[in-house]
Amino acid sequence: MARMTASPAPAARIIVTGGTFDKHYDAIKGELTFKESHLPAILEQARVTMPLAIEVNQLIDSLQMKDEHRQSVLAACRAAPERCLVVVHGTDTMAETARVVGAARLDKTIVFTGAMIPYSVQGSDAQFNLGFALAMAQAKPAGVYVAMNGRAFPWDDVRKDKGSGAFQPAKESKA
Amino acid sequence: MARMTASPAPAARIIVTGGTFDKHYDAIKGELTFKESHLPAILEQARVTMPLAIEVNQLIDSLQMKDEHRQSVLAACRAAPERCLVVVHGTDTMAETARVVGAARLDKTIVFTGAMIPYSVQGSDAQFNLGFALAMAQAKPAGVYVAMNGRAFPWDDVRKDKGSGAFQPAKESKA
Amino acid sequence: MARMTASPAPAARIIVTGGTFDKHYDAIKGELTFKESHLPAILEQARVTMPLAIEVNQLIDSLQMKDEHRQSVLAACRAAPERCLVVVHGTDTMAETARVVGAARLDKTIVFTGAMIPYSVQGSDAQFNLGFALAMAQAKPAGVYVAMNGRAFPWDDVRKDKGSGAFQPAKESKA
Amino acid sequence: MARMTASPAPAARIIVTGGTFDKHYDAIKGELTFKESHLPAILEQARVTMPLAIEVNQLIDSLQMKDEHRQSVLAACRAAPERCLVVVHGTDTMAETARVVGAARLDKTIVFTGAMIPYSVQGSDAQFNLGFALAMAQAKPAGVYVAMNGRAFPWDDVRKDKGSGAFQPAKESKA
Repeated sequence: MARMTASPAPAARIIVTGGTFDKHYDAIKGELTFKESHLPAILEQARVTMPLAIEVNQLIDSLQMKDEHRQSVLAACRAAPERCLVVVHGTDTMAETARVVGAARLDKTIVFTGAMIPYSVQGSDAQFNLGFALAMAQAKPAGVYVAMNGRAFPWDDVRKDKGSGAFQPAKESKA
Repeated sequence: MARMTASPAPAARIIVTGGTFDKHYDAIKGELTFKESHLPAILEQARVTMPLAIEVNQLIDSLQMKDEHRQSVLAACRAAPERCLVVVHGTDTMAETARVVGAARLDKTIVFTGAMIPYSVQGSDAQFNLGFALAMAQAKPAGVYVAMNGRAFPWDDVRKDKGSGAFQPAKESKA
Repeated sequence: MARMTASPAPAARIIVTGGTFDKHYDAIKGELTFKESHLPAILEQARVTMPLAIEVNQLIDSLQMKDEHRQSVLAACRAAPERCLVVVHGTDTMAETARVVGAARLDKTIVFTGAMIPYSVQGSDAQFNLGFALAMAQAKPAGVYVAMNGRAFPWDDVRKDKGSGAFQPAKESKA
Repeated sequence: MARMTASPAPAARIIVTGGTFDKHYDAIKGELTFKESHLPAILEQARVTMPLAIEVNQLIDSLQMKDEHRQSVLAACRAAPERCLVVVHGTDTMAETARVVGAARLDKTIVFTGAMIPYSVQGSDAQFNLGFALAMAQAKPAGVYVAMNGRAFPWDDVRKDKGSGAFQPAKESKA
């Protein structure tokens, strides 16, 4: 009988925290809520063949996140055996959680992304953003980034513009 | 009053060649064909804010591409003022065109991508792949890559497996 | 030159009141709300060639409807020149408004319908229900009906089951 | 042990023959083809609660239908225990098959429908048309009809206009 070789460790990990990205319409309640993550379905649709671990850390709206929730995201990033991480997160406080994780200076490439329109709603940016973030997680040097609107922002220079919903360098807002 | 600075040149360019990615269902003919590129609609949906030029180089099925078509792609890559390029291409001969462009050793990051299912059909990988490719074009060093299945392959080591439809290193096929 | 004949009056009218059917995701507010009716887009997609008038009577959630709102629906039904009417309405109080209109004994075929999942959300029943209702409005004798779940219920014997979200004869609930 | 009572016979039957309605994109072959019917998924999405039998009679393009295929549709209509039948059929020869079934003068309401754009493609009319046809099958007197474009045409006065793709009375074409 042939010797078993250890299967290689997953090359990347997606840490799911909820946010608009993963909201689902509950037909009985008549509202958008969380049930289970759409990530496995999206990755199957994307025909991704690289080894990927999916970890549901929490499923909440990022406006409801408190410091303990952000610490939980940091702990998941720290514990992950992979060096390429994508964190799917609500956009409203994505920059705040990125700052918590960025300040920890982990030796990994950690890319935050999310969506302005849920995956399950017409016109969603979820699939594009996930593809964008997964590429940045593989190609960027170690560090923490926010990947939205087709751009990757460093964790210490990014904010969401409430009016347009778009992310931009934090410095632009001081102009 | 502050001095006006000239607006920066587009940071990236998408060169459209057709392929499954951009096929559209013609209800009268009852078949998938090309009409106009979906790229502007996809980028609007993705809420991309970075400066992006879209250039329709050709709209054909990549199985119909001859050397002159691949030379036209190379010429477009050479002529583009941007250093970050995405080429949307049919998957069947994507690796061949990538080899033509790769051999030219341009000092740009050029990322080929496409789709196994058209953007206009349920279950498409088009949006994910475009996001993935646009990130690779920004983050990778100069060179030519094929970005499919959540991975970026160098132009001189990639092939499409006809059975599964997935891209893989060319060397794996010799094992 | 040939004599012009007057074009025939529209054969059917769709009276829009809002409800889940027509909700739209507001990416900035992050919630489902009303903007404009999807009816014109749906009818174009359905390739309907019969003459159809679309009238936006109101755009609200049916849980917020008071008697004056239902009277407004009745007034629109009464004023319509067509004998075939479809009323697009929220499901929660659809049966109540149908009773108000039914009691008026207009000599028209009036069919209420709606959706459990918005047109703009994956897995919506909106298109099926609209097609179903528009056929019932053409084929049924004068009277008021609630058309949901692939069935047409008379206005005086229908209720929505809160648990399953499905409509059923009112008498079944007394069993 | 309690006596078993016979479950009531299904109130309607959907006879599937293929056509554009049910085409599916084969990512490996890169073409639209038939795999399995989408009808069960569509009816679940439509939240239909009435008893419905689904019968796959054949899965072909209606341009490939010969007389034996139309006879098979007629045989299925004749054999069905229900009096309300919907036949899902390609649009190109729908009127021809309807004439074969219509001439048989069965004492049932039989409604042909289909789609100009497959259910699996953006902008499809499949769901609307199925809802429309299922209502006509319940509400119309016995006879054979073609239900497309939001209208129900009698089997002996209908044709598809090749230019627009829309169905219309056969007599209009003689004007």
